[in-house]
Amino acid sequence: MEKYEIKEMLQRVASGETSVDEAMMKLKTAPFEEIGIASLDHHRGLRQGASEIIYGASKTPEQIETIARTLYERGQKTILITRMKTEAADRLAASGLPFTYYETGRIGLVGEMQKPRREGYILVATGGTSDIPVAEEAALTAEILGNNVKRLYDVGVAGLHRLLAHTDLIMNARVIIAIAGMEGALASVIGGLADCPVIAVPTSVGYGTALGGVTALLSMLNSCASGVSVVNIDNGFGAGYQASLIHNLGE
Amino acid sequence: MEKYEIKEMLQRVASGETSVDEAMMKLKTAPFEEIGIASLDHHRGLRQGASEIIYGASKTPEQIETIARTLYERGQKTILITRMKTEAADRLAASGLPFTYYETGRIGLVGEMQKPRREGYILVATGGTSDIPVAEEAALTAEILGNNVKRLYDVGVAGLHRLLAHTDLIMNARVIIAIAGMEGALASVIGGLADCPVIAVPTSVGYGTALGGVTALLSMLNSCASGVSVVNIDNGFGAGYQASLIHNLGE
Amino acid sequence: MEKYEIKEMLQRVASGETSVDEAMMKLKTAPFEEIGIASLDHHRGLRQGASEIIYGASKTPEQIETIARTLYERGQKTILITRMKTEAADRLAASGLPFTYYETGRIGLVGEMQKPRREGYILVATGGTSDIPVAEEAALTAEILGNNVKRLYDVGVAGLHRLLAHTDLIMNARVIIAIAGMEGALASVIGGLADCPVIAVPTSVGYGTALGGVTALLSMLNSCASGVSVVNIDNGFGAGYQASLIHNLGE
Amino acid sequence: MEKYEIKEMLQRVASGETSVDEAMMKLKTAPFEEIGIASLDHHRGLRQGASEIIYGASKTPEQIETIARTLYERGQKTILITRMKTEAADRLAASGLPFTYYETGRIGLVGEMQKPRREGYILVATGGTSDIPVAEEAALTAEILGNNVKRLYDVGVAGLHRLLAHTDLIMNARVIIAIAGMEGALASVIGGLADCPVIAVPTSVGYGTALGGVTALLSMLNSCASGVSVVNIDNGFGAGYQASLIHNLGE
Amino acid sequence: MEKYEIKEMLQRVASGETSVDEAMMKLKTAPFEEIGIASLDHHRGLRQGASEIIYGASKTPEQIETIARTLYERGQKTILITRMKTEAADRLAASGLPFTYYETGRIGLVGEMQKPRREGYILVATGGTSDIPVAEEAALTAEILGNNVKRLYDVGVAGLHRLLAHTDLIMNARVIIAIAGMEGALASVIGGLADCPVIAVPTSVGYGTALGGVTALLSMLNSCASGVSVVNIDNGFGAGYQASLIHNLGE
Amino acid sequence: MEKYEIKEMLQRVASGETSVDEAMMKLKTAPFEEIGIASLDHHRGLRQGASEIIYGASKTPEQIETIARTLYERGQKTILITRMKTEAADRLAASGLPFTYYETGRIGLVGEMQKPRREGYILVATGGTSDIPVAEEAALTAEILGNNVKRLYDVGVAGLHRLLAHTDLIMNARVIIAIAGMEGALASVIGGLADCPVIAVPTSVGYGTALGGVTALLSMLNSCASGVSVVNIDNGFGAGYQASLIHNLGE
Amino acid sequence: MEKYEIKEMLQRVASGETSVDEAMMKLKTAPFEEIGIASLDHHRGLRQGASEIIYGASKTPEQIETIARTLYERGQKTILITRMKTEAADRLAASGLPFTYYETGRIGLVGEMQKPRREGYILVATGGTSDIPVAEEAALTAEILGNNVKRLYDVGVAGLHRLLAHTDLIMNARVIIAIAGMEGALASVIGGLADCPVIAVPTSVGYGTALGGVTALLSMLNSCASGVSVVNIDNGFGAGYQASLIHNLGE
Amino acid sequence: MEKYEIKEMLQRVASGETSVDEAMMKLKTAPFEEIGIASLDHHRGLRQGASEIIYGASKTPEQIETIARTLYERGQKTILITRMKTEAADRLAASGLPFTYYETGRIGLVGEMQKPRREGYILVATGGTSDIPVAEEAALTAEILGNNVKRLYDVGVAGLHRLLAHTDLIMNARVIIAIAGMEGALASVIGGLADCPVIAVPTSVGYGTALGGVTALLSMLNSCASGVSVVNIDNGFGAGYQASLIHNLGE
Repeated sequence: MEKYEIKEMLQRVASGETSVDEAMMKLKTAPFEEIGIASLDHHRGLRQGASEIIYGASKTPEQIETIARTLYERGQKTILITRMKTEAADRLAASGLPFTYYETGRIGLVGEMQKPRREGYILVATGGTSDIPVAEEAALTAEILGNNVKRLYDVGVAGLHRLLAHTDLIMNARVIIAIAGMEGALASVIGGLADCPVIAVPTSVGYGTALGGVTALLSMLNSCASGVSVVNIDNGFGAGYQASLIHNLGE
Repeated sequence: MEKYEIKEMLQRVASGETSVDEAMMKLKTAPFEEIGIASLDHHRGLRQGASEIIYGASKTPEQIETIARTLYERGQKTILITRMKTEAADRLAASGLPFTYYETGRIGLVGEMQKPRREGYILVATGGTSDIPVAEEAALTAEILGNNVKRLYDVGVAGLHRLLAHTDLIMNARVIIAIAGMEGALASVIGGLADCPVIAVPTSVGYGTALGGVTALLSMLNSCASGVSVVNIDNGFGAGYQASLIHNLGE
Repeated sequence: MEKYEIKEMLQRVASGETSVDEAMMKLKTAPFEEIGIASLDHHRGLRQGASEIIYGASKTPEQIETIARTLYERGQKTILITRMKTEAADRLAASGLPFTYYETGRIGLVGEMQKPRREGYILVATGGTSDIPVAEEAALTAEILGNNVKRLYDVGVAGLHRLLAHTDLIMNARVIIAIAGMEGALASVIGGLADCPVIAVPTSVGYGTALGGVTALLSMLNSCASGVSVVNIDNGFGAGYQASLIHNLGE
Repeated sequence: MEKYEIKEMLQRVASGETSVDEAMMKLKTAPFEEIGIASLDHHRGLRQGASEIIYGASKTPEQIETIARTLYERGQKTILITRMKTEAADRLAASGLPFTYYETGRIGLVGEMQKPRREGYILVATGGTSDIPVAEEAALTAEILGNNVKRLYDVGVAGLHRLLAHTDLIMNARVIIAIAGMEGALASVIGGLADCPVIAVPTSVGYGTALGGVTALLSMLNSCASGVSVVNIDNGFGAGYQASLIHNLGE
Repeated sequence: MEKYEIKEMLQRVASGETSVDEAMMKLKTAPFEEIGIASLDHHRGLRQGASEIIYGASKTPEQIETIARTLYERGQKTILITRMKTEAADRLAASGLPFTYYETGRIGLVGEMQKPRREGYILVATGGTSDIPVAEEAALTAEILGNNVKRLYDVGVAGLHRLLAHTDLIMNARVIIAIAGMEGALASVIGGLADCPVIAVPTSVGYGTALGGVTALLSMLNSCASGVSVVNIDNGFGAGYQASLIHNLGE
Repeated sequence: MEKYEIKEMLQRVASGETSVDEAMMKLKTAPFEEIGIASLDHHRGLRQGASEIIYGASKTPEQIETIARTLYERGQKTILITRMKTEAADRLAASGLPFTYYETGRIGLVGEMQKPRREGYILVATGGTSDIPVAEEAALTAEILGNNVKRLYDVGVAGLHRLLAHTDLIMNARVIIAIAGMEGALASVIGGLADCPVIAVPTSVGYGTALGGVTALLSMLNSCASGVSVVNIDNGFGAGYQASLIHNLGE
Repeated sequence: MEKYEIKEMLQRVASGETSVDEAMMKLKTAPFEEIGIASLDHHRGLRQGASEIIYGASKTPEQIETIARTLYERGQKTILITRMKTEAADRLAASGLPFTYYETGRIGLVGEMQKPRREGYILVATGGTSDIPVAEEAALTAEILGNNVKRLYDVGVAGLHRLLAHTDLIMNARVIIAIAGMEGALASVIGGLADCPVIAVPTSVGYGTALGGVTALLSMLNSCASGVSVVNIDNGFGAGYQASLIHNLGE
Repeated sequence: MEKYEIKEMLQRVASGETSVDEAMMKLKTAPFEEIGIASLDHHRGLRQGASEIIYGASKTPEQIETIARTLYERGQKTILITRMKTEAADRLAASGLPFTYYETGRIGLVGEMQKPRREGYILVATGGTSDIPVAEEAALTAEILGNNVKRLYDVGVAGLHRLLAHTDLIMNARVIIAIAGMEGALASVIGGLADCPVIAVPTSVGYGTALGGVTALLSMLNSCASGVSVVNIDNGFGAGYQASLIHNLGE
């Protein structure tokens, strides 16, 4: 409930249009309802500028379908499901809901992608081929939330010329998502080349002292390039979501 | 050297205006010079959209003055010095250069602040009073780089009503820098209230299992709110710098 | 053996009612017996104010049944089994003992729940739906040990209004168990709202730097709210047990 | 602001006693004021059942005096200052405010101790003599907040008979605060003897793999005794505060 | 090769009994032979006072049989196999070698147990029932190497009276092996009661912050009792082996 | 693109042989092509003095075959595949390509081993038999890249005479790869005996506080012997590759 | 109080020699007295076979003198003070008590060293010269508690022949204390050479990844030699104490 | 003692030239002598191909002078002292020995630098100016041990063109030492550009999650470039020493 809405409601109370009890009820009933499994928040699109997102990792196919159907029936046009397993995707595909599944990024979509609202693009770059599932989670999240996305995969710093051959793509991006496991140096090198915000995503790619992504994370947090911030290990969604917020800033 | 510059140079070679050796030299001499202590990079303002920044922590007062003077004499209008100790500030103050020192944030400025180029503001919020030095580093960085900044200090989540009393300020910000030590929950709560990008800065405030800021860092990386990314512990500069990139995106 | 019991026994020795050897035996035979698998402690109900509890995680179905039967036959009215797997539950269900199994919380009960001995209630709150198994372990433990329990699930701080809509429930609780994974901020926010003791339970929900619950644990230990203490990761039982001790204090 | 207060205010708006703007202002002005350094929260005594507490570690003597004086002048009867250094104590002692300093526990008191409101006592036990500063912080916090406190120091488990000689004291306590460094086994042994809630405080006493208190913390979190919860390393205040909440529960 | 043997050989060279080349060969051929899989060391029984031990964890059933057979055929009377899986045990049982398998402790024995060479006993104590596999590894190792062993299982410190009921057993032991997971406090309590060397074995029993045994290990290393040393997590063999060395010292 | 190539191209532009656009294109097209799955780098043999290497761990059998075939058809004579699983090996074996699989070291070879270009040998030593798979990865990598290799397995420091019996082999090596898990002491002992560079490889052999190889890694990094450097846990390939670089230095 | 003492006392109660209250008092008064600072335990010499030991690190010179004087006046002949700072030593030297200070090992002695009660010796070996303070703490502890001690310093494994030159000393020891920082390999090498119990002491010598002794500790816990157990980092006292227990076993 | 020396000695025993006792003595007296403080090893120059090195960190100025003088007087021509503090340098400067002190690298030299024995050079590169002390330790070590060294400082990857401007220097080096703190990405980028062995040195430069160099270390261990090995944090000496071994290989 925005400030101006509270003011209007108070004016209605003052004018007698709204009773004290109605106002009381209004203030108490937050803009969500409980459907047994999870609290849904229909106003969130307004408040946070984004569609409702379902974190699929710890939910059963049944729970995901129930939540998605409820949201869809109340008018949500774009419902993004992350960390979605194939069993859940199979169920949604058979549900009658308008559903698409992007397997590599484990992303499900009920409804339709939002149209890009801004020119320019978000660049999603990875150090290796093993980082691609996380990259697709990021790229699809940004696309579904209404952004143009370009992909630049397998440009790790050990083969620097591969990366440098795409300097244009880096220079012209509005936001860059730099994704890498192992030593995570990609974020620093891209951060040094680009003049736009860089969101770094460490991945759990590697073995031994890669420590399941902790090494890449630490490396990225200590980037000697300015303008780099970091999200959780393998959190492609978080990077795609924030990139979309940045790209569409001020809309 | 930008793409179009290489093209122009090649055309001059083709037309005979430039000799092969000159072109060779041009391609080899990168746009920086060495002044003994540190490599300066005058083109960086163009390439990265920012002024030159001097990381003061590990440099002597003499080194800082030399670098600042060189940059200033070549026309750099805004020179930002971070992690500046008072001895260095004293030396710069006596150097004849146009110098201002902001003690709380340990920020020095040679030249002048850039004018804000965009409406709207960056909000810098802290959980406690002990986080203020880091917050000032972030706020001054953003101000010097040309942004309006609003400060909201000591609004930790243990006194939630303090924070909620400023919901307007949070709702209307273009970018928010959320700074907290201890358990770092401020980032999640602000992340849940705001619809703009949030950059979280863990601080080394706390004792015992605060682990010098690692706890706040881990907490912020795992924020249940979307749209939050994180920088290194106590890295106010990094947050202010990226916030400025985001706020001035597309300029 | 309480102090007064020792005194009485000594008096009986002095008066000749008890022989030296009998007294010796008495002092040596602690109030437990060995049944091969585990030492049972029948006096524990008196000494610790609680029923006997069987930690089911590392015991075979056979061992659990043997222990439960022995306890039940000696008059234990309420036998609580934690971390009970379905195979063990199936065996107990077929054992003839009065048995109930609560699958979500992996709790088994031989005998009956104790009647609540105090007015008021223990509130069990969770940040997300994935925390519910731990929450049920806590809630059922408290209920079985004789307490009224209210549940408030999926009220994570990223959707602050969901939590604030239940401020009454928080304000009126006698003890609160705050359960969350990821960044564990729920404990701090509830700790700031409540004026009763809060027991925080970190859960292993999350990925990457959630570190299997360590991040939530560290966060909760560093809560900026006073009045919060913490138990081991996923230790719903420990929280429910201590909440029961607190709620029934002085009985 | 409580629910009933909101209702009354709305009724005054409806009846015209309060204008819309006044109500608007009322809803926005939270019950605190900013005094430059820190937000004070005068209603907290009501809401959280405790007096205002000043965390002295990161504040200058001047800041502490200013905050304490402001609180005292508005009628706060008991102002507890934790982690107070001697310089700050010297300043307060010369301030004209009614001030007492407890050096071992680094606790300052402006005003007077609250009277114990309940019979029974909180027991504060330590493993060694090096744990006493933390123990005094806990004991004084509880005493100042209105509780009887008994102290049982240097009863580490390596000399078990020392501890067992005080079984009565342990058995009869309402709440126990068990404080230990090194391996922190005291919490488990007391937890096994007592039938009341035990709050364990790890201390940074020890060297090498004591890891600054982390070992004692981990040990206490894994106590094989039920009914033990834990606070941050060296957090005597937190334990004393929660013990007071528990001891005075329901008042 | 012992010092006196070298001297004798040199004397034989001087007297012409041994040629230079023979001596050379003698000095070069160390007292072991390679059988493809592993270097066997037949002199070890003399040099280290123990029988040959086969670490079975990373060897195939075939490898274990080959090594055991080779040793047995060269006259080794007692061959101890640790961390032996059932498949390997099945193969050895069918091998014609005199073989016994102790399943709980995963110990295999080819040949026969050595006779105890000293009076007195090694006491093996555990905190819980889940520690028994490690305890059996320790107890059987000591028994096979020629020691009397007494077992005292499930005497964790949370039920202190259970432990105290066996004070005699503790007081009269020559060496004690204290085995516990979770918080590992058993080592400290036994260390305080006993006047003999205590070898502590942390186990990986527990969950969450038990950290796979690291918590128990740290706790035991920081024992406030003197006279306690520690071996690796779950290393029952190492404790049993050292206890045997201590118990038979000077033989 | 080497320096002299740039110069030649510029000369061709000056003479009109090459157009500006062609030169532009030349500078932009790095020496690699994209084949969908991964960027191949045919010039790498020249630039890095090594054959192309395929990291097989995260690639499907199909991907490995496609990459290997492409490389082979363009004339790559030696294609080394590391961390290759048996399914991938089976596919390659049926592919018609000249393929060999070394199962213990999980190494695949398409084409032929390079001929040793230097006299002398690289010594690969291990502490135990469990380290052999990592050792074979190292040894085969070095052999395939054109080096003589000698193997010295199961010479851990607990049986020092086994190691000392091979002092010659150690003294005469040109480079030594010392491979060990558990406490990793082999690197220090060999480092003290040898006068050539030693590359240490920690392995994940061990349990409990072996911490999956971290203990061996830390031990090796802190070797009291000079001349020891370290690679990642289980990284036999990395050690073999660097040993080959060192052995063939200056060719 | 031993079992037979309890029995005798009960017999005296039965015979009327002892009143119930006297017996009660006897059972309650543990064999120690409180002197304000610390609980002293005069029976410990009997119970644990050792003299009273004062841990000096966290005690003031005054406290140390008070405790030492009290013990001395009650007849304790050997009082060992560990981690004693020079100020405390200066005070004790001026106290009139028979006092000796061993500066390198920071050990103080009030009274006299106990006479060695066994033939044979404890060997104390170090890897480097920086480990000597810890070694002296160990060696002096063992000497004061009545053992012959031999020292073998600076025999780190990087110079293996230095160590091997003293094989006799190692072979003939009854107990060995192996002390090393950095990678701690000394324990493994000595453990492989000796046939007696080895107590390993990691030291905080080293830098970077030596991690203040944690690396040496981990290395020692994972020693591939059997018969090695470990104490806390820099815990020379603990090693000396346990070595004395082992050496004098059965006395 | 080499193999052939043993053979010769045995022949002299056979021929009567050498008595049994002399031979015995010969075998026992290792090639070192003890001078109270430290065991010196005069044969090491032969055996390890290097001069004697004194680790100055934990030695007093007196000890350093004594060791250096002893070595010098026995004919050692090049004595390298690392981690040397200014007090020690002052003492050596006044000692009459031919002494040079290199303050930035904390390196002392008694005697003279060895002449470079090979063409080509070792390249020492750093990411920032703060890494220079470690770099100088490496560079001076290599120079003193007889190598040409080139320095390339402050070429961190955030300003990639600075580094690329020196591609020639990188391409032509025989060995590269890559030194960096923070995220340590320099090692990967140089590793990708070079075709020679790269030794990476992490430094403790940075703050917060730089973790005193652990982040750079982990990053370097996980380098996606082949041919990179790593030494301990800040271990410039170790890198310089190994680089010298590699550069002079086969001499």
